[in-house]
Amino acid sequence: MQDQIKLFSPATVANLACGFDVLGMALDSVGDEMIIKKSKNKGISISKIVGQDLPIEATKNVAGVAALELYKELEVDYGFEIQIFKNIKPGSGIGSSAASAAGAVWGMNELLGKPFSPNELVAFAMEGERLASGNAHADNVAPALFGGFTLVRSYKPLEVIKLACPEELYAVVIHPQIELKTADSRKILKPTISLRDGVTHWGNVGGLVAGLYTNNYKLIGDCLKDVIAEPQRADLIPHYYELKHQVIKSGALGVGISGSGPSIFALTKGKKIAKGVAKTMQTVYQNIGVDFDIHISKVNQKGIYKID
Amino acid sequence: MQDQIKLFSPATVANLACGFDVLGMALDSVGDEMIIKKSKNKGISISKIVGQDLPIEATKNVAGVAALELYKELEVDYGFEIQIFKNIKPGSGIGSSAASAAGAVWGMNELLGKPFSPNELVAFAMEGERLASGNAHADNVAPALFGGFTLVRSYKPLEVIKLACPEELYAVVIHPQIELKTADSRKILKPTISLRDGVTHWGNVGGLVAGLYTNNYKLIGDCLKDVIAEPQRADLIPHYYELKHQVIKSGALGVGISGSGPSIFALTKGKKIAKGVAKTMQTVYQNIGVDFDIHISKVNQKGIYKID
Repeated sequence: MQDQIKLFSPATVANLACGFDVLGMALDSVGDEMIIKKSKNKGISISKIVGQDLPIEATKNVAGVAALELYKELEVDYGFEIQIFKNIKPGSGIGSSAASAAGAVWGMNELLGKPFSPNELVAFAMEGERLASGNAHADNVAPALFGGFTLVRSYKPLEVIKLACPEELYAVVIHPQIELKTADSRKILKPTISLRDGVTHWGNVGGLVAGLYTNNYKLIGDCLKDVIAEPQRADLIPHYYELKHQVIKSGALGVGISGSGPSIFALTKGKKIAKGVAKTMQTVYQNIGVDFDIHISKVNQKGIYKID
Repeated sequence: MQDQIKLFSPATVANLACGFDVLGMALDSVGDEMIIKKSKNKGISISKIVGQDLPIEATKNVAGVAALELYKELEVDYGFEIQIFKNIKPGSGIGSSAASAAGAVWGMNELLGKPFSPNELVAFAMEGERLASGNAHADNVAPALFGGFTLVRSYKPLEVIKLACPEELYAVVIHPQIELKTADSRKILKPTISLRDGVTHWGNVGGLVAGLYTNNYKLIGDCLKDVIAEPQRADLIPHYYELKHQVIKSGALGVGISGSGPSIFALTKGKKIAKGVAKTMQTVYQNIGVDFDIHISKVNQKGIYKID
């Protein structure tokens, strides 16, 4: 059995406008890299973090906490060492904590000979999310682990469904360089919604899933509607509605807040339109003088994978 | 062009547990029959209603109101005469008003050479629903017109999506002979829900749609969950939870209230289990002394159709 593995763990877009807390999608052009090694020392240690200033103590690091959650299930006389090469900025809203947490447990599972199911890995990785945001949600760790589009159908019991994904679907994500913590962004959400808004959301989730299975790009875009979180969170993101308006004019299928923000995502049919959308986003934020990163990515179909 | 048409318009199950106001399904073994004729007299007249005591005046009859809505769009020097052979009991919760309203406009559209799209027919038929329940909902008229499973993704603009439907899916519907008006059953619903319950519903709607496209019968059943309307409406239906419990034990994939009740529906994989479920329903209601009708039906794939 191999003793170490190097892996790529993708950034992810959660919620996808209509599917608050249940839908997510994996990106391909941005993600963390990690090395997971078996170690003579029992327990979990983090030996290296490159690219970001994050806690190296396992119990205070999202990857460490997820790894410890899996490790609790084992009876072994060895441990695991984790190295993290962060390419996803924490607080960006594209699943930075999820990528590291999911990568840690995926890598350990590979080294152990895959004793755990993908659903079990999601449950371990969710503990990393609990550390990051106070809420053990699965809408980023699920697409990181499964790839493509995922639906967290149920938490009790935990059940993740990997949905279909049309070939030509591209995502463009812009990350304005402002700080916005998931925990704070969740706090502003009212705990109740109108039944009418609920109906709008489950109508759109149903339509989005139908669109994914039938390669209906227009339908997918039409369903990217958020009448619950977007009106409450848009003010936290610079010029959100202006950007959205311009991006739709540039041919995007739909636009929404990525996870709890501040990143904004758009879906497009094909790479050419994706490039145009990225240019539009860039122009809007350059004009208002906000720093940003932009990612153009095909949807990642396979989730976390081994690299050399 | 033909001058008259005889048609079958199916009973329908709306909501399907998780999809309040958006999902619906058509039955095959029960429905109204109607004859629609061109008439020298302008306007809409109802010349015959067999099987139920319902208003014959067009403006007071759901079929008449729907027909008038379509007729308003025409510039013709003739009218239409409608005959209705009611097999669906009003107030049963399986789309009695929807079948008549949808049948009327579908038949007229056929006689006119199909100038209107299915979505336009849904909009006309919804006016019949407004008369019946005070609310122009589409979750019964849509499956009556399209057949199979339908999703009313949006009302403004109106957009109905016909979903996939696995071949072996059967429905069993029991109608306890108690009166329950849609308007009353809607009135008891609270106008707000918790965000948490909303998430549960859109997770299940997404899962149900995925199950329909992937022939995943277990998933379809698991998604038939209602944490919003069922807890508020179950008390209106005799021994609802007991019946549900027994029906699940008999092998049904899932159970829910049909529309706003009082009918209860179950889905099964295959006819054999459907028959067993029907027997279980029968036993429960015989034991408590409630009169009932039971329908066992394959899902109707084609919606309203011409008969001889």
